[in-house]
Amino acid sequence: MNITTPTLLLDKKKAFNNIQRMVEKARNSGVRLRPHFKTHQSAQVGEWFREFNIDSITVSSIRMAWYFARHGWNDILVAFPANILEMEGINLLAGKVNLHLVAVNLETVEALAKGLEQPVRIWLKIDTGYHRTGILPHAHIELDEMLNLIHKSDRLHFEGFLTHDGHTYKETEVEAIRSIHNTSVYLLHLLRDRYKAQFPDLKLSMGDTPSCSILEDLSGVDEIRPGNFVFYDLTQEHIGSCNYADIAVCMACPVVALHPDRHEIILYGGSVHFSKDSLQLADGSVIFGRVVALADNGWSEPLEGIELGSLSQEHGIVKATPKMFGKYKIGDLMGILPVHSCLTADVMKGYLTTGGEQLEHMSGVGQLV
Amino acid sequence: MNITTPTLLLDKKKAFNNIQRMVEKARNSGVRLRPHFKTHQSAQVGEWFREFNIDSITVSSIRMAWYFARHGWNDILVAFPANILEMEGINLLAGKVNLHLVAVNLETVEALAKGLEQPVRIWLKIDTGYHRTGILPHAHIELDEMLNLIHKSDRLHFEGFLTHDGHTYKETEVEAIRSIHNTSVYLLHLLRDRYKAQFPDLKLSMGDTPSCSILEDLSGVDEIRPGNFVFYDLTQEHIGSCNYADIAVCMACPVVALHPDRHEIILYGGSVHFSKDSLQLADGSVIFGRVVALADNGWSEPLEGIELGSLSQEHGIVKATPKMFGKYKIGDLMGILPVHSCLTADVMKGYLTTGGEQLEHMSGVGQLV
Repeated sequence: MNITTPTLLLDKKKAFNNIQRMVEKARNSGVRLRPHFKTHQSAQVGEWFREFNIDSITVSSIRMAWYFARHGWNDILVAFPANILEMEGINLLAGKVNLHLVAVNLETVEALAKGLEQPVRIWLKIDTGYHRTGILPHAHIELDEMLNLIHKSDRLHFEGFLTHDGHTYKETEVEAIRSIHNTSVYLLHLLRDRYKAQFPDLKLSMGDTPSCSILEDLSGVDEIRPGNFVFYDLTQEHIGSCNYADIAVCMACPVVALHPDRHEIILYGGSVHFSKDSLQLADGSVIFGRVVALADNGWSEPLEGIELGSLSQEHGIVKATPKMFGKYKIGDLMGILPVHSCLTADVMKGYLTTGGEQLEHMSGVGQLV
Repeated sequence: MNITTPTLLLDKKKAFNNIQRMVEKARNSGVRLRPHFKTHQSAQVGEWFREFNIDSITVSSIRMAWYFARHGWNDILVAFPANILEMEGINLLAGKVNLHLVAVNLETVEALAKGLEQPVRIWLKIDTGYHRTGILPHAHIELDEMLNLIHKSDRLHFEGFLTHDGHTYKETEVEAIRSIHNTSVYLLHLLRDRYKAQFPDLKLSMGDTPSCSILEDLSGVDEIRPGNFVFYDLTQEHIGSCNYADIAVCMACPVVALHPDRHEIILYGGSVHFSKDSLQLADGSVIFGRVVALADNGWSEPLEGIELGSLSQEHGIVKATPKMFGKYKIGDLMGILPVHSCLTADVMKGYLTTGGEQLEHMSGVGQLV
């Protein structure tokens, strides 16, 4: 590998193992795995999922749905409140694939019922505790109104209730994550019980990477939608979703300056390469990545006494002990495990596998339609 | 304008005025303006600078230097510690344009002296107080070694000393910024005095947007290199570099969900659109953008009682007073002034001018070489 600029490495074997583990857990729990593809946004990584007979996927935008539709996927859930300004694109896409949309407000359902020219499957998003967006599970008046309107529409097919427990990302204890997950399952069951007479086939869908990684049994819902697990990252390791050895992506960054007076190493690799997500450790310190030793076919576990301490637009500042500082020279490549793999992949716009293969990312692709 | 997804608007007139003001200040101070193009990274915005007879520019990577070289620029400073792994690209580029590189360590100068096949102008970066990277101004032994090596090389032409006062970004008082700037000028003068016998033509270059915007007189150096001023942003307004009315870029984001119970508005527009830089206000609160009213040909000053309070990957969460909340409905476009325009432009990969023109950003362009 002739790497000269910041490059996102991808260990295909690790990603495969991560996929396989989640596929087996879903099968053992009797739930469908509808993986979220926003983490990798790569046609080729998508193909790896097909080898495990995955045929339904989750994305986060109409553009991303187009991208994967063009690569042969035809059961696609856009897990984001439907953007009614994109009605034209929604109609085009719904004419080609089995399209699932999400609604949070009555106004959205009204606009869809009016503007759709193609049948679409619709999910109502429930706020089971994350409080970012979603309908509160006890908001029966709103739910009744939305579901009555969906029932009357010949374009909207009610698929079920969906939630995203993003609040698991703040936790690091298994029992806290279990409590969040079980609460959500309980709340979704109450909704199913309330509406199953009107919609006998309604489904329940959930899935954040921490719950799906940490809990052994995911039964009780019909579908899970984790995404980050394909790569994992330092955030997930901190939560307890994975081990360092499971992290399937790693940045390789040139060393461009050395500061022996303060044992700091300057990398070519800043917020335009990593994004700006950071991780606060137990001692209160904040890091933007952990340093690993790069090898021919991958990388080591994180090294002690050296970490990516801050980022500006193109600079990464690595702080090291005197001993670790002494191991690096100008022109070396340093390996860095990212804090948030989804965002790092999005700004890097492509991957280089440890086998030397270039893989695309949707962000590196031009106009799609 | 038929905007349906998150879009970065650019007010050409504001950007023009920002450029003109800096051009005039540089002329009145008797210094060369070598604007940093990493903020806009756009061939077309670059053309606007040509109308003011700007012919020398600053960039932050070899790739960016290629991009602007292809668009006719031929005096280009890569203001980043030279990455010796890119020697091949450096040699190719140095054969086409008047290329300026930066060094911080003797090892870099040694590698350049050995690897260069074309003449290159070299600057030594001085750390005048920011402490990100650079040679300490009193490190005479290192400076002597580096300059003796440069003097002996027939490929390296010593151009002068360069600094970047990034620590002005932490300040909000004019006198603090003046103190930082004057200290840097003083330190650069000491260096010039020490080395002018050996290098009679050596130049001094500095330039961060806060100093260059806030201080009236920039004389005392030969060259200034501000970049952000072309667009400005909330960070610069907070520092005091500009007024809200000077901010030349604004995101337009669809409203996709409403939460009347807590007066929160969900936007299609998250960290993959804004990047993740935030701004801490005097009251300790953290914001990711300020809301403006969009009009046909631009936008208003920031509105009171409504702001972008948090971001996840694709969601923006706007917090509002009940009164302001009531003004928005699903399917509206909301205008948001960004916290850090350089990073927002980098992830958005293009612009739509308020006149309806699409402008490119280097991040939206494929392979260059």
